[in-house]
Amino acid sequence: MKIVIVAVPGAGKTTVMKRVKELLPKVKIVNYGDVMFKVARERYGVKDRDEMRKKIPIEEYRKLQLEAAREIGRLTGNVLIDTHLTIKMHGGFYPGLPADVVAEMKPDIIFLMEFRPEDVIERRLKDLKGVRTGRDVEGPEEIELQQQMNRYFAVAAASYGRCVVRIANLRYKQSRPYEHTEVAAKMIVELFSG
Amino acid sequence: MKIVIVAVPGAGKTTVMKRVKELLPKVKIVNYGDVMFKVARERYGVKDRDEMRKKIPIEEYRKLQLEAAREIGRLTGNVLIDTHLTIKMHGGFYPGLPADVVAEMKPDIIFLMEFRPEDVIERRLKDLKGVRTGRDVEGPEEIELQQQMNRYFAVAAASYGRCVVRIANLRYKQSRPYEHTEVAAKMIVELFSG
Amino acid sequence: MKIVIVAVPGAGKTTVMKRVKELLPKVKIVNYGDVMFKVARERYGVKDRDEMRKKIPIEEYRKLQLEAAREIGRLTGNVLIDTHLTIKMHGGFYPGLPADVVAEMKPDIIFLMEFRPEDVIERRLKDLKGVRTGRDVEGPEEIELQQQMNRYFAVAAASYGRCVVRIANLRYKQSRPYEHTEVAAKMIVELFSG
Repeated sequence: MKIVIVAVPGAGKTTVMKRVKELLPKVKIVNYGDVMFKVARERYGVKDRDEMRKKIPIEEYRKLQLEAAREIGRLTGNVLIDTHLTIKMHGGFYPGLPADVVAEMKPDIIFLMEFRPEDVIERRLKDLKGVRTGRDVEGPEEIELQQQMNRYFAVAAASYGRCVVRIANLRYKQSRPYEHTEVAAKMIVELFSG
Repeated sequence: MKIVIVAVPGAGKTTVMKRVKELLPKVKIVNYGDVMFKVARERYGVKDRDEMRKKIPIEEYRKLQLEAAREIGRLTGNVLIDTHLTIKMHGGFYPGLPADVVAEMKPDIIFLMEFRPEDVIERRLKDLKGVRTGRDVEGPEEIELQQQMNRYFAVAAASYGRCVVRIANLRYKQSRPYEHTEVAAKMIVELFSG
Repeated sequence: MKIVIVAVPGAGKTTVMKRVKELLPKVKIVNYGDVMFKVARERYGVKDRDEMRKKIPIEEYRKLQLEAAREIGRLTGNVLIDTHLTIKMHGGFYPGLPADVVAEMKPDIIFLMEFRPEDVIERRLKDLKGVRTGRDVEGPEEIELQQQMNRYFAVAAASYGRCVVRIANLRYKQSRPYEHTEVAAKMIVELFSG
């Protein structure tokens, strides 16, 4: 079974994936961007992701995306795929999982974690990397907009690629630290366990 | 003209279809799942729907879906197609009318009935079958989520298959029994009548 | 760069396009319907848009849409494309920019302007043409529904055609006349300027 795990940036996706790996050590965790870079290095000899984005012409880049998706599509066993449904670009949202990519990747489930925007803001503030790179601080409305757009893009992908869209509702205040992580990880483990 | 009629389960779709048939006896009412089963029986010799789902490999199953959609696409006259936009699976939503299926089925209109969740709950409780099979009782939020997901899936299908998405707003308290049925049936009859 | 500009009818899109042209005279403004008509006139000898819609069989009409989209897709430089995401038909919404059309048109950005419904109503009432043709007066809920549907159709198109969906939030009361026009036009100029 292949599950794509998605959330807005800084919401705690990495922690959830780690917890799934602890609970289910056999699961393969695959980052779509990493697979793309691996293919790009082999084919085009690029040195890093930045070069990948800048040196490869757009048409080739799309082929690369499809090739990487196809490679993930061939994986067997329980696979957890780390990627984004939307990428912020030009003040808007670019599809991270376009229709044809999802058709090659063949996930069974898009697992979409949704949070209260204020919880996302709190987590981002705690995340030192966020502070260091000085990325723009998003307000609750912008976060909520991305959550909504993620839903629409998940459905467009699922309609074309035929997979389940599961909305993991984590829109409540935690009663203890890492409650959301634990709840989301257990949902995923249950999905993998049948 | 071909119209796909959709609503969340237990909202009263069957009653609306019966009323349309009374008002417009020449209309053909076609159940997508029935057509799939008919094709599956001819091709694979399956005995019932359960066997169809379990015995046919996934790739063949998809061909079957397309074949059944194509058969519906060839129908002439006024056709009312009974199917689901979303099927609950793995705690999420699987497309009942994926992009390629709608492209073969060639409906003119997806007629999406929306209700107040409390009215859906009331109708489900009255429906004896629901009680007998002991299906999980959904709360208003789950029903509303499926209504929202139905909208998104309807649009994804329409964008690929080029058809109209008509939202039939039945989100109000009935002033007499079967008011929703009557209103929805008349809308459909008007659409068929040009 | 190619930008598709979209809003509900009567919201002020034409005024925004004129302002963009003033600020950035080199931008090409292209109306999708005009390009379709030009192709239809050459191919089918139709005299006006009305004849185009009525005389061309549906399958040919679709080819025409794709042909016109392809022609726009070949344009270079900064192009602002004027079209609709949804067309009101049969009491519902027909895709103005279906999946395959957007794939041929190859826009970089779908620029979706959203307004407070009451502002749209006010602008429509001021628009003399609207009064003359006596078109049905839509209430705030109908306008808001079309704005929501535009979002979903924008995402479906972007997922298939791989482009950015930018939501231009103009959902606030203007503090001076033409503030929305000025704000939207500047956003577009910035996008073109890189």
